[in-house]
Amino acid sequence: MQRVAVLTEPDHVVLETREVPEPGAGQVQVQVRAVSVCGSDVHYYDHGRIGGFVMHAPLVLGHETSGVVSAVGSGVGSPAVGTRVAIEPQVECGRCAQCRQGRYHLCPDIAFFATPPVDGSFAEYVVVPAHRAHPVPDTVSDEAAALIEPLSVALHAAAKADIGPGTRVLVSGAGPVGLLCLQVALARGAAAVAVTDVMALRREAATDYGATATIDGNDHETGLAALGAAIGQADVVLECTGVQPAIDLAVAATAPAATVVLVGTGSSITLPLDVVQARELTVKGTFRYAHVYPAAIELAASGRIRLDDMVTSHHPLEDAVGALLAARRDPLALKAVVHPSS
Amino acid sequence: MQRVAVLTEPDHVVLETREVPEPGAGQVQVQVRAVSVCGSDVHYYDHGRIGGFVMHAPLVLGHETSGVVSAVGSGVGSPAVGTRVAIEPQVECGRCAQCRQGRYHLCPDIAFFATPPVDGSFAEYVVVPAHRAHPVPDTVSDEAAALIEPLSVALHAAAKADIGPGTRVLVSGAGPVGLLCLQVALARGAAAVAVTDVMALRREAATDYGATATIDGNDHETGLAALGAAIGQADVVLECTGVQPAIDLAVAATAPAATVVLVGTGSSITLPLDVVQARELTVKGTFRYAHVYPAAIELAASGRIRLDDMVTSHHPLEDAVGALLAARRDPLALKAVVHPSS
Amino acid sequence: MQRVAVLTEPDHVVLETREVPEPGAGQVQVQVRAVSVCGSDVHYYDHGRIGGFVMHAPLVLGHETSGVVSAVGSGVGSPAVGTRVAIEPQVECGRCAQCRQGRYHLCPDIAFFATPPVDGSFAEYVVVPAHRAHPVPDTVSDEAAALIEPLSVALHAAAKADIGPGTRVLVSGAGPVGLLCLQVALARGAAAVAVTDVMALRREAATDYGATATIDGNDHETGLAALGAAIGQADVVLECTGVQPAIDLAVAATAPAATVVLVGTGSSITLPLDVVQARELTVKGTFRYAHVYPAAIELAASGRIRLDDMVTSHHPLEDAVGALLAARRDPLALKAVVHPSS
Amino acid sequence: MQRVAVLTEPDHVVLETREVPEPGAGQVQVQVRAVSVCGSDVHYYDHGRIGGFVMHAPLVLGHETSGVVSAVGSGVGSPAVGTRVAIEPQVECGRCAQCRQGRYHLCPDIAFFATPPVDGSFAEYVVVPAHRAHPVPDTVSDEAAALIEPLSVALHAAAKADIGPGTRVLVSGAGPVGLLCLQVALARGAAAVAVTDVMALRREAATDYGATATIDGNDHETGLAALGAAIGQADVVLECTGVQPAIDLAVAATAPAATVVLVGTGSSITLPLDVVQARELTVKGTFRYAHVYPAAIELAASGRIRLDDMVTSHHPLEDAVGALLAARRDPLALKAVVHPSS
Repeated sequence: MQRVAVLTEPDHVVLETREVPEPGAGQVQVQVRAVSVCGSDVHYYDHGRIGGFVMHAPLVLGHETSGVVSAVGSGVGSPAVGTRVAIEPQVECGRCAQCRQGRYHLCPDIAFFATPPVDGSFAEYVVVPAHRAHPVPDTVSDEAAALIEPLSVALHAAAKADIGPGTRVLVSGAGPVGLLCLQVALARGAAAVAVTDVMALRREAATDYGATATIDGNDHETGLAALGAAIGQADVVLECTGVQPAIDLAVAATAPAATVVLVGTGSSITLPLDVVQARELTVKGTFRYAHVYPAAIELAASGRIRLDDMVTSHHPLEDAVGALLAARRDPLALKAVVHPSS
Repeated sequence: MQRVAVLTEPDHVVLETREVPEPGAGQVQVQVRAVSVCGSDVHYYDHGRIGGFVMHAPLVLGHETSGVVSAVGSGVGSPAVGTRVAIEPQVECGRCAQCRQGRYHLCPDIAFFATPPVDGSFAEYVVVPAHRAHPVPDTVSDEAAALIEPLSVALHAAAKADIGPGTRVLVSGAGPVGLLCLQVALARGAAAVAVTDVMALRREAATDYGATATIDGNDHETGLAALGAAIGQADVVLECTGVQPAIDLAVAATAPAATVVLVGTGSSITLPLDVVQARELTVKGTFRYAHVYPAAIELAASGRIRLDDMVTSHHPLEDAVGALLAARRDPLALKAVVHPSS
Repeated sequence: MQRVAVLTEPDHVVLETREVPEPGAGQVQVQVRAVSVCGSDVHYYDHGRIGGFVMHAPLVLGHETSGVVSAVGSGVGSPAVGTRVAIEPQVECGRCAQCRQGRYHLCPDIAFFATPPVDGSFAEYVVVPAHRAHPVPDTVSDEAAALIEPLSVALHAAAKADIGPGTRVLVSGAGPVGLLCLQVALARGAAAVAVTDVMALRREAATDYGATATIDGNDHETGLAALGAAIGQADVVLECTGVQPAIDLAVAATAPAATVVLVGTGSSITLPLDVVQARELTVKGTFRYAHVYPAAIELAASGRIRLDDMVTSHHPLEDAVGALLAARRDPLALKAVVHPSS
Repeated sequence: MQRVAVLTEPDHVVLETREVPEPGAGQVQVQVRAVSVCGSDVHYYDHGRIGGFVMHAPLVLGHETSGVVSAVGSGVGSPAVGTRVAIEPQVECGRCAQCRQGRYHLCPDIAFFATPPVDGSFAEYVVVPAHRAHPVPDTVSDEAAALIEPLSVALHAAAKADIGPGTRVLVSGAGPVGLLCLQVALARGAAAVAVTDVMALRREAATDYGATATIDGNDHETGLAALGAAIGQADVVLECTGVQPAIDLAVAATAPAATVVLVGTGSSITLPLDVVQARELTVKGTFRYAHVYPAAIELAASGRIRLDDMVTSHHPLEDAVGALLAARRDPLALKAVVHPSS
């Protein structure tokens, strides 16, 4: 038997005892070492839903997960028992048009951790297909291995924008995903990366993580002028807020033929059609990631992305709520990590 | 001296006598044979402005233009006097970052016919750089040569979406540009092209121009269901209305990883961020065209695009207003053509 | 029991009686109606091998196949019994890196009809996964449905080159694949498509199928000059011969930044490195196809590709050898078709 | 008057006194500070030609150039006198199809330094268009500013291959360009970059510059096995030798769907057509660079590329021959730099 933190309804997390899941054919069982908290976990905790994804039954939160393989099902050659792994928390059907095209993350039947009705990893053990348990080297800590998940989000988003040397990048929003996007833009060779945020403390964090300029997003006109002075016009925007004024500023700051990648979530955005057309902007939605975990692990292991520094608190499974509320309680909090097996 | 139709203020066009412009070095003088009317001409006639482009002085309208070279300036090897030409109505600076990158249509200093303060071609003679007067074969009529301009808009837009055999295309709006986009999609090999419009007569026109399905856009739910039955999900949308309900329908009809090209103009659009992300849509603004005239002429000459059929009325220069109002007076009107030199 | 034409060793085809294969889970059994002969079938007949693919046991030839679904295995919703289908003759593993990326045709464990040791369709019945039996409408004949296979080769190759309106295309070689590439280039909107071949009769065929120019490939210099006069420099080459002099001519005829797609097969080619660099050419290998059958069927059904005209002889299964030798006996032969179920 | 080192015929460089060139309209005069030697300079020194580029008159070598603006012509706003600059050594016509498409480096009328009959920069002063004199910050030394030229070659080549995090890169050849390609691949986020070379000392240099593996290229089979062990199959090859055995090894090491960029020069290469097709390889020629200098300068200034370390000897203009022969005399020599104004 194992302990599991269950969100029974908004604002209520209880510790339950459940059976340890056994790995079936092609699956591995992973003893969970670290689960970092994502804004979506907090949103389910607060509201019981995110847009059309609605909790109709108790839900185990947590999808940014690392651990060690504790058992393997039949037919599994690797990873072997004892291997430290980062878990890619999605299981696709493998047969639909999207899967066949290589876009398994867009599979309409995808099962994604901590997205109703699929349970997540606030648990001592989880079971996943073997190819979704990606080995990590010892140079990547358990916490960093959990953070491979949001790093994958950033890598996938940045790949949509063809960032490289010479690209002038604007990262809109200096929360955890924004800071990862910033680091990824730098790792791809961008030498001019400006970060906007409305909070001074977050802008300081952006500077710490390598931003070549930080811009106060509170006022559109002064922000736009400051951006122009800092990086000129942006060839690429990685929009990580989902908030209209930030989007307005980001779009206004674009160069002709720029690409705007929409990373931050929300329900609706308004775009200035005349600007989108006169500059021939390309606006891209981005959804999770596919085929990215190995690259993310490799990049983290190479030391070019600071993941461990982003961990700002540690919590036992009993304090999952503390982890969920960490960002709310501390404006400097970036990533709270739950350790279910400690 | 020559006659010129001048928009002095909204709703007022007068016939003036002006000097015939002489071609400078590298320029040609073209005797204008046909000028087809665009919705933007009508918009200036009605409002004296389009968004940020505002008339502060009398303006000659007309930018869809054909004619015959009547004189050449120094250093012009071709086209020679007597050559029938379609005029690409834009003159770029040639030195800015956009021009150097090959995106001359995004040149911030572009001079475009009939866009304040640059005069257009409701005139007996115009002067343009030699390389903007593109020769047309005799199989392309004067009227079709004028329509090379909106055909270029459609070609440029379709090129942004990588339409080819197998692409399931939705053209949103069956006005002149929509019908050209429809024809271009077919010419690129698409075998499933649905067209939406709120007017039955326009949908009939779309059928006549080869649409594999036409969809009544008046009701979102029934329109969406009809689209699904007709072409499944759309891989590509060519949005030619700029109107929010049409955009809503088009976006709702997309397949995962689809591309939406925004051709129709307007000031602001709202997009469902969750849909744009969950499907990883790519939304592209398109602005005029670049490097497209030769291809448009070649395609028209090959007989694969019906241009002459789209001409629904002819007007002498004295009746420029009649041409401007033709579409308003007749819901079946597609393209009114002014013949300044007749 | 069924009849099957078996290549027992080079130059020896015998008619055998074998058990009719039963469809397993997810599979369909297809009664074969038409199998068109490909040059690779002839090559195995002559040599018992193609490069590294070597016959070590008797082999059933034939991979361009149509038929009617005669039985379905468990779990198959569609196509239903009685459905006319074009068979995509490849079965991938579905689990390797290439399959997961959507490139199932590059799966290292692919089983492809009539490629040792996998039997082909010179047989009354074959079994394939349900999703590899693509329904065809009644407007596509049995013979045309078989020819969907080489049409898919041409579509896949052309898609690698981004052919569209304005592209100046050179098809090198006017054999069956060359003529299909020609037709596909036209169907994608190219208005200038030149075809080279060393045989006058084949050049005439190219003209018949819509080539805007045909070029005698026997002499490099005159051929190059003729190409220049006909289409200028080629933006795209679809090289369908695999023969060095033809490749030399094609590469010499390219424009700066052109793309050369290598469709014709062979073991080795020599390229002028200085030309490849000075023009920044892109040279692409192409291998069979993936995700293309539905588009090919749709295009054929739309009447834009002439497939039936390419059928130059019909043969019962007993005369499989006659079909294999047809091209050798008649220089005007394009596609010989075997009808196993007649 | 100024001193200029002139190659009068192969193996003969003489110091001449010539007039200092005055800047015309739109031009700047640059006092040359550093000129690094390229293999092409050495090739002209040895043979008087490179392929079709043949010396018919005395030629000033040198095209990797930095200096300080010493005078400006009419109409030049920037760079101002006194600005330290890296000189992009090419002047295009600005009006041809290639220039208009943004590919000015493919302009058929390009004038490139030290390419007959255009003189280079082994001189105290040169004149270039203002936009080809790119300002460099003080953090970039004179020598590094000269090396912006070969760095641009590497950046342009790497950009053709879409290298990013997760890309498995093979750099073929550890000469100066190979080491720059290696550094650029790392700067673009690649975490697995193997370098092949036949010389052990060069492989050591590659390790020093960050290669994750170095491979002895002397034996095909052991080299291939070592590559497989080091990085698996290569997604991208940057081929910097132009030598057939190295190309053979690089092509053999590719993954399906890989891209091979041909950076190393030569007259002819042989490719295994069956491999190019079965893996659907993309092979790209690369020629100099365009639009890259600002990115190269920015990247160098950011400290992510080690340029100064690559300078292995310094020479006054009188010893231009010593610079040309440096690489021949010392197998560890990477870049010899001539200082004309010292």
